[in-house]
Amino acid sequence: MSDSPTSKALPSRPRDAKSIESWSEESEVIVVGLGVAGGAAAIEAARTGADTLVLERATRGGGATALSEGTIYFGGGTRVQKATGFDDSIENMTTHVRAAAGPTSDPEKVRLYCENSLDHFDFFCSVGVEFKDTYYEEKVIFPPTDDCLIYSGNEEAHPFSEESPPVPRGHKPRREGSAGGYIIECMIETLSDLGVRIQNETRVETLVRDESGRIVGVVAIVDGEERAIRATRGVILTTGGFIMNKEMVRHYAPDLAKCNYPIGSEGCDGSGIRMGLGVGGAAINMHEGLMTTPYFPPTSHIQGVLVNQQGQRFINEDCYHGRVTGSVMQKAEGRAYLIVDDSIYGKTMVPYKMAAVEETIGELEKALEMPEGQLVHTLTTYNEDAERGDDRLFHKAPKYLKPLVDAPFAALDLSVDRSLWAAFTLGGLDTKSTGEVLTVDGEIVPGLYAAGRASAGLTRSGRYYASGMSIGGSSFFGRLAGRTAASATQG
Amino acid sequence: MSDSPTSKALPSRPRDAKSIESWSEESEVIVVGLGVAGGAAAIEAARTGADTLVLERATRGGGATALSEGTIYFGGGTRVQKATGFDDSIENMTTHVRAAAGPTSDPEKVRLYCENSLDHFDFFCSVGVEFKDTYYEEKVIFPPTDDCLIYSGNEEAHPFSEESPPVPRGHKPRREGSAGGYIIECMIETLSDLGVRIQNETRVETLVRDESGRIVGVVAIVDGEERAIRATRGVILTTGGFIMNKEMVRHYAPDLAKCNYPIGSEGCDGSGIRMGLGVGGAAINMHEGLMTTPYFPPTSHIQGVLVNQQGQRFINEDCYHGRVTGSVMQKAEGRAYLIVDDSIYGKTMVPYKMAAVEETIGELEKALEMPEGQLVHTLTTYNEDAERGDDRLFHKAPKYLKPLVDAPFAALDLSVDRSLWAAFTLGGLDTKSTGEVLTVDGEIVPGLYAAGRASAGLTRSGRYYASGMSIGGSSFFGRLAGRTAASATQG
Repeated sequence: MSDSPTSKALPSRPRDAKSIESWSEESEVIVVGLGVAGGAAAIEAARTGADTLVLERATRGGGATALSEGTIYFGGGTRVQKATGFDDSIENMTTHVRAAAGPTSDPEKVRLYCENSLDHFDFFCSVGVEFKDTYYEEKVIFPPTDDCLIYSGNEEAHPFSEESPPVPRGHKPRREGSAGGYIIECMIETLSDLGVRIQNETRVETLVRDESGRIVGVVAIVDGEERAIRATRGVILTTGGFIMNKEMVRHYAPDLAKCNYPIGSEGCDGSGIRMGLGVGGAAINMHEGLMTTPYFPPTSHIQGVLVNQQGQRFINEDCYHGRVTGSVMQKAEGRAYLIVDDSIYGKTMVPYKMAAVEETIGELEKALEMPEGQLVHTLTTYNEDAERGDDRLFHKAPKYLKPLVDAPFAALDLSVDRSLWAAFTLGGLDTKSTGEVLTVDGEIVPGLYAAGRASAGLTRSGRYYASGMSIGGSSFFGRLAGRTAASATQG
Repeated sequence: MSDSPTSKALPSRPRDAKSIESWSEESEVIVVGLGVAGGAAAIEAARTGADTLVLERATRGGGATALSEGTIYFGGGTRVQKATGFDDSIENMTTHVRAAAGPTSDPEKVRLYCENSLDHFDFFCSVGVEFKDTYYEEKVIFPPTDDCLIYSGNEEAHPFSEESPPVPRGHKPRREGSAGGYIIECMIETLSDLGVRIQNETRVETLVRDESGRIVGVVAIVDGEERAIRATRGVILTTGGFIMNKEMVRHYAPDLAKCNYPIGSEGCDGSGIRMGLGVGGAAINMHEGLMTTPYFPPTSHIQGVLVNQQGQRFINEDCYHGRVTGSVMQKAEGRAYLIVDDSIYGKTMVPYKMAAVEETIGELEKALEMPEGQLVHTLTTYNEDAERGDDRLFHKAPKYLKPLVDAPFAALDLSVDRSLWAAFTLGGLDTKSTGEVLTVDGEIVPGLYAAGRASAGLTRSGRYYASGMSIGGSSFFGRLAGRTAASATQG
């Protein structure tokens, strides 16, 4: 958006099919990138009956999903929801997902995702992913145990809680702690059972296009050598987002460029988006992303008070952490302190700078160089409200309201330039729900599909969002892409 | 960004030169659209020696400029600045313009604009635009008199005032009240003197492209009939922004879509941007725009206190009105009240809903259904600070600080869904400083140029901005486009 992009942010030009002397290999469907979107696409393509080849640049694969906790956003009355006593419906889920997908979301993608959520749960079961029929009550980023169901988004937080009855929909597979790698391993085993070929250490940065404009294959680099691989039905780009490509982030997403901890695998360098752009695909929502700083756990920190440089609150602290962090950027110019008292303070995952520790709020205010009386007023009001169980300013849920009265008081510095802010991108190739890549004038690029973070998918804004919507949306639309490509007329 | 664009938001496909049976006319340079960018481009092209033809869809032309007050942003020590005792330098101007152009601005465009500001002032003088050597001290949106120099942006407001010494740079031509139409009339007269042909009531929505990819002309509609007009050196799109195209606004700029008063002429329907997209041009910064609600004049309203639904202040009220309004959208979810007392209240240009009028701030707070004690606290703090001349929260300049103590007190509702919010777009075709239109991969579309709101120009964000940067930037880069096209090799 600022100055012109440099080479690393530029589209990747396709190769002309006529220039390919011989194809080293051929497959009906080629899937580029083995994360959760690629795994789902390949499984579905193979189940639809297509000969399918997966090309993955890493030694094993897994993408950003393998590095994640593995939460998946399901609803509408899953087996786990029912077993744990939660009453959900597709309609209820749709209301929340529509909000959580963000103001620029695609209504058709939201609708399809919710209407088919039970089927999508079954899909994961069918590839061997297990879910325990348990609910983990504490508000965490993810359960440290092998428990399943959590509130992973803004369902219980104002104003979302007013719009639809809160129900937990984050489903973490049955593994202690992080389960992202486990999901990928289940998929790899399923792919093996289905006879899908996976070629690792194979880097794809070039599409091959024929005279008619159809994508008919890729040029892969294996051991430093080029191999042209033909795809007779379609190429599916599931290469991830672009958070690891600093130049793309700087060019497209200035707010994300301020964050110092990219969430993604090495492969999240935008290669698929750039390949898509190079054949006329449109990239949309490119300035958006999720930003987060993990001020909890400990869950007790949600009882803290988040203030800007003026000592004012600006958000209910019990929202999804990405919404809270996004609000720090949007409403507080990237600068905020979490005020805690001795009874709720606990060790955080990352070491925040302790901006001040004092015996009184007045002293804390002074140490933070805030205008005299402002933080004192904020805390006086908050404590009164907490005492009564009614946060009149931002409607934090009563269960997280506790007067801050136990000295000493501390201010954790959550500012973007002084603490860890993690981020990933939410922009990518414009696609139909089927995964077909669209040009800027809404036409399909024949033979090309995209899903996962390489596309602008289900979820378009980090300030709405819920954990599990990325893996959920990426796998769901990966499946649709796989099915569509597998059924496409042979080129 | 959301669902797929409909036809009115789609690129306009070019016509193949081979399909043109005969050209009805030919010119070296064709300028599409006679606003300030088009006028400047045509004058400069003609002065460079090129045969130049201007095609304008309206009966007279003028675009958004003719409807505006006509302020132009000049600095670096203009004749008017010197005569009125203001000391400016190119360096000082550059520091402020860099900030005012916004976080996604193009450093090269900022540099060129500032370094050549005195020459650009001379250009306007050379086309007969007069400026009175006077300074209008009161903070207004524009002087109602024929006076010239005003602070038209954020120069005096925190934090900008800390970054560079404040100097006024808004220059309004010597005409009572609005002077935009006058600027255009001066340009039309200059064009006439230069022998430039102007064809009115001529609508252009199609470019003509030859086999090599070069733009070689346009198809114009005159009296319902198509006429192919050849351009041997270049076509310059100066067709304005897209605020009048509801579908484009909804698709690209969701925040602007909430505003109910589009600022622009009928022609600001994105036709040029769509033509550029149709030949591979990239459109950037499309979600950005200027939003404003005119809460002043009266200037006394700047002494008011702007609060969100929680009764909190969130911005210094003496910023540029577009920055204040943009902050209402960004920081206060589009809802805010301007609190005034009896002594500063005055009639505004647009009728705001008076949300409440009460004898005490406590009663006002109650009437506005704000949490008890919040507005009272805000006003207590503000009044103490105003008394001392030191706004410790947001650093409003001392000259606008006055305790609000004269009952009754009123709350004017400035919310986006309850008052007039004007808006125009700040996104458009990606161009080099020379006006050459760039593709998504940074290559030039041969024969095609853009300037003014059809391009992403000098200024990229309404929350920084200054009045006069649009007319200033549009005319400056219009001139560069005119000069470049006029010197281009003949196609």
